[in-house]
Amino acid sequence: MANGILQGKRGIISGALDENSIAWKVAMKAKAEGATFTLTNAPIAMRMGEIKKLADACEAEIIPADATSIEEIENLYTKSLDVLGGKVDFVLHSIGMSPNIRKGRSYGDLNYEWFLKSVDVSALSFHKFLQVAEKMDAINEWGSVVALSYMAAQRTFPFYTDMAEAKSMLESIARSYGYRYGKLKNVRVNTVSQSPTKTTAGSGIGGFDKFYDFADKMAPLGNASADDCANYVVMMFSDYTRMVTMQNLFHDGGYSMMGVSESLLQGE
Amino acid sequence: MANGILQGKRGIISGALDENSIAWKVAMKAKAEGATFTLTNAPIAMRMGEIKKLADACEAEIIPADATSIEEIENLYTKSLDVLGGKVDFVLHSIGMSPNIRKGRSYGDLNYEWFLKSVDVSALSFHKFLQVAEKMDAINEWGSVVALSYMAAQRTFPFYTDMAEAKSMLESIARSYGYRYGKLKNVRVNTVSQSPTKTTAGSGIGGFDKFYDFADKMAPLGNASADDCANYVVMMFSDYTRMVTMQNLFHDGGYSMMGVSESLLQGE
Amino acid sequence: MANGILQGKRGIISGALDENSIAWKVAMKAKAEGATFTLTNAPIAMRMGEIKKLADACEAEIIPADATSIEEIENLYTKSLDVLGGKVDFVLHSIGMSPNIRKGRSYGDLNYEWFLKSVDVSALSFHKFLQVAEKMDAINEWGSVVALSYMAAQRTFPFYTDMAEAKSMLESIARSYGYRYGKLKNVRVNTVSQSPTKTTAGSGIGGFDKFYDFADKMAPLGNASADDCANYVVMMFSDYTRMVTMQNLFHDGGYSMMGVSESLLQGE
Amino acid sequence: MANGILQGKRGIISGALDENSIAWKVAMKAKAEGATFTLTNAPIAMRMGEIKKLADACEAEIIPADATSIEEIENLYTKSLDVLGGKVDFVLHSIGMSPNIRKGRSYGDLNYEWFLKSVDVSALSFHKFLQVAEKMDAINEWGSVVALSYMAAQRTFPFYTDMAEAKSMLESIARSYGYRYGKLKNVRVNTVSQSPTKTTAGSGIGGFDKFYDFADKMAPLGNASADDCANYVVMMFSDYTRMVTMQNLFHDGGYSMMGVSESLLQGE
Repeated sequence: MANGILQGKRGIISGALDENSIAWKVAMKAKAEGATFTLTNAPIAMRMGEIKKLADACEAEIIPADATSIEEIENLYTKSLDVLGGKVDFVLHSIGMSPNIRKGRSYGDLNYEWFLKSVDVSALSFHKFLQVAEKMDAINEWGSVVALSYMAAQRTFPFYTDMAEAKSMLESIARSYGYRYGKLKNVRVNTVSQSPTKTTAGSGIGGFDKFYDFADKMAPLGNASADDCANYVVMMFSDYTRMVTMQNLFHDGGYSMMGVSESLLQGE
Repeated sequence: MANGILQGKRGIISGALDENSIAWKVAMKAKAEGATFTLTNAPIAMRMGEIKKLADACEAEIIPADATSIEEIENLYTKSLDVLGGKVDFVLHSIGMSPNIRKGRSYGDLNYEWFLKSVDVSALSFHKFLQVAEKMDAINEWGSVVALSYMAAQRTFPFYTDMAEAKSMLESIARSYGYRYGKLKNVRVNTVSQSPTKTTAGSGIGGFDKFYDFADKMAPLGNASADDCANYVVMMFSDYTRMVTMQNLFHDGGYSMMGVSESLLQGE
Repeated sequence: MANGILQGKRGIISGALDENSIAWKVAMKAKAEGATFTLTNAPIAMRMGEIKKLADACEAEIIPADATSIEEIENLYTKSLDVLGGKVDFVLHSIGMSPNIRKGRSYGDLNYEWFLKSVDVSALSFHKFLQVAEKMDAINEWGSVVALSYMAAQRTFPFYTDMAEAKSMLESIARSYGYRYGKLKNVRVNTVSQSPTKTTAGSGIGGFDKFYDFADKMAPLGNASADDCANYVVMMFSDYTRMVTMQNLFHDGGYSMMGVSESLLQGE
Repeated sequence: MANGILQGKRGIISGALDENSIAWKVAMKAKAEGATFTLTNAPIAMRMGEIKKLADACEAEIIPADATSIEEIENLYTKSLDVLGGKVDFVLHSIGMSPNIRKGRSYGDLNYEWFLKSVDVSALSFHKFLQVAEKMDAINEWGSVVALSYMAAQRTFPFYTDMAEAKSMLESIARSYGYRYGKLKNVRVNTVSQSPTKTTAGSGIGGFDKFYDFADKMAPLGNASADDCANYVVMMFSDYTRMVTMQNLFHDGGYSMMGVSESLLQGE
């Protein structure tokens, strides 16, 4: 499916690690829909062999940036606007990392330095993306900014530990900045709350496989894939959704609205 | 804007009264995006001169149906499938009416016969649309059903009286049937919660103009127009949103996520 | 536990069927806390032998009333105010019934007459309780009105069928009337969304036992009992909660805020 | 009003600054209801003359603690348990501070060091209170932990800037730790989302007075006072609410459930 719904639009896509990444799929889909964009990721997260393949496929330039650094984000916008020939119309924030999860700390034994690191990388970076963009006036009127979130922002998933707090904050930033940027420039800001997805990042969370199956039995349409998510995200970048802002949008096959499913009750 | 995102899709669009109607705009937009569809409305609500103009513009057949009557809904599907040459891929429910509002009854002096009429027309009709479709197997796999709602389903707007309850029920039906139809056929069911809109129906509500201005000052993007809503609805009919179901989606320029705006505090 | 928190307060308690009923427990608890009240139930629902025991234990008069009948609700207030010696301070609405559930109709095969009956008995009756009270000025300033609800109003529990819609409407009425009665007389109106409870009514729902266990494993505190619920309800009647209104309050051991629990993931 | 509902209970109350503080009122009310407790505040926030008056009135010991310091929180629990003669039954977290607000930084010009400071003081401190308590096993079974929050966690109030994110995170911690502590020890954790309140802290926010009036016109019961809030909080500490956990509870005269009020529409 490709209909040119992003024809003429320019953007920045962060977070493509490998071909399992949602951001990778968004890039491929955005390209197919007619957009031009730059790709970015943290220098330490980049698997250069992998992301170069994506850059080639998308005819996109890679501009590494540590999403916690104002200077590197400024550089990202400066170079992107230069390469793309004008302000951007869309930005994807797909950035998250919790040292507490990586190192297996339980929620009752969190390391607070790491907690603040989770917050800085996974949530505050989103504010930085927006504040720098506003100061540089880097986003066109009616531009669309999307960050990927997870339902742990609303409800408890024990294995998600401090990422629950990071995602709550991420969604709050979308609301707060959505108000501000909407008033200023009609730029809209939303989060997409995606099903558990078999990305390299997602699979790193303990107990992920069991939960993936549980979620698949709960959601009437099953878990949404990374490909489905990419379709949804490009639509959120398009002009079809211009009056949607400050929202957290569940893209999850219905999971978020379920109390219990027959499959789970029957132990199927 | 038109990209052919509904190319090859068939549907049914209810509720077009005149060119201010959201349903009217959805029809025009769906046509532009490549869909074929039938139009329906209650025999008593149809302004034949008006809707014929729309039918002509869209090359669509008009099939009158009282949305509270199983028989007429059955007839609507039978004829639609016949005219369109196959099962439908999308259905728009844009039907609502409250005798209590029409006759100016306050919320503390409701007529309960009329209350049940509000419910029957504005909410239960949506269940009938779905139950009849399921029994007749009239909707294709991955079809998309959308009903128009309003934020009074979540929060109180005094002038909306018993339509608040009707919309709460409408959204509940979207969840309940969304689960069922999702499991059965991957059909998805959602509601779109639209800004106050200067339609003939909307304007009939007392105090509407004052509230329209209040909402416009609250929402950072201002009130979403009927045209914007049509763009959003056709996107919900498209394959870009296949994994979204059981949701109530705010299309309101951000109003729903606002506590208060600077404009309102400053009395601007 | 009894501290006299309802000392001097008068009320009306509906829905006590037998000693498993939440309303029964509320009555016992309200009595222990110092309240005087009348008991009511539908004539056809009353098991006279049972409810007389409760009436004796509480020194309360029984005033039968069909909750769908304005006249009988008027009679209920008239007699209650007479018996109690003044206006009431609290009202419990614990009334619900779905013919579709009773007769085992699936959600895709609902009888619409019965649906409207579910709505009339389970939701509209709450509006009638409030509208009649307002017209008769039967509730004291700062009075507290509580209706029992269930989380199916927000999320889908397949076995709950059309009661999901009735509860959505019930909660909407609490908001709408809470606004109105709050402005008029500082009367507050809330719903309490209770865990699945082994009442006679609850157990009548197909698959209840399996779901009861599922919920018990999801909620970190386990399912809340009818006794716990009674404690919570009397507190909502007391002056400790005077500024809480228009809310739906989850009393469910935490279920509503869970995405998934470790117990369920481990299949314990 | 005092009924002894906290008879025999021990606790810790943080955040009493002066007699306008909600925490101050909670302390007075908890004392009246029969509790014994210690008082705590950050050494730099304490106005010793003031808090000593409270300590005298409540026969409570003051144990200063910087809520960002694990060591000082450990000391707080150690001394509290010692002074009180056993584990505690309730904890009030009423701690918040944003350097960005204090120094008048707009949301588009945040200082990120200060942002992390807001998070550390206003949200992460709550996790520390809980994690330290768990490790020291300092809270009795069925104990109740409450943190004060604000609706900016759900919706946007422009003047609240980064405290919106801090409160979102605070409420997320209540959910996440509520699950954990509930499973472990049946300890429950909730937040109370209070009306704008004329405390020394609240009044420090720019535009507060205008907003206070706006909120008062929106809420059908008007803004809830600090005294009302204290009543509600002690009720949340009592055994009447044992099965409520992981919730954010609006104590706001109905504001949270309002779309618009007649007063605001009429410009009264």
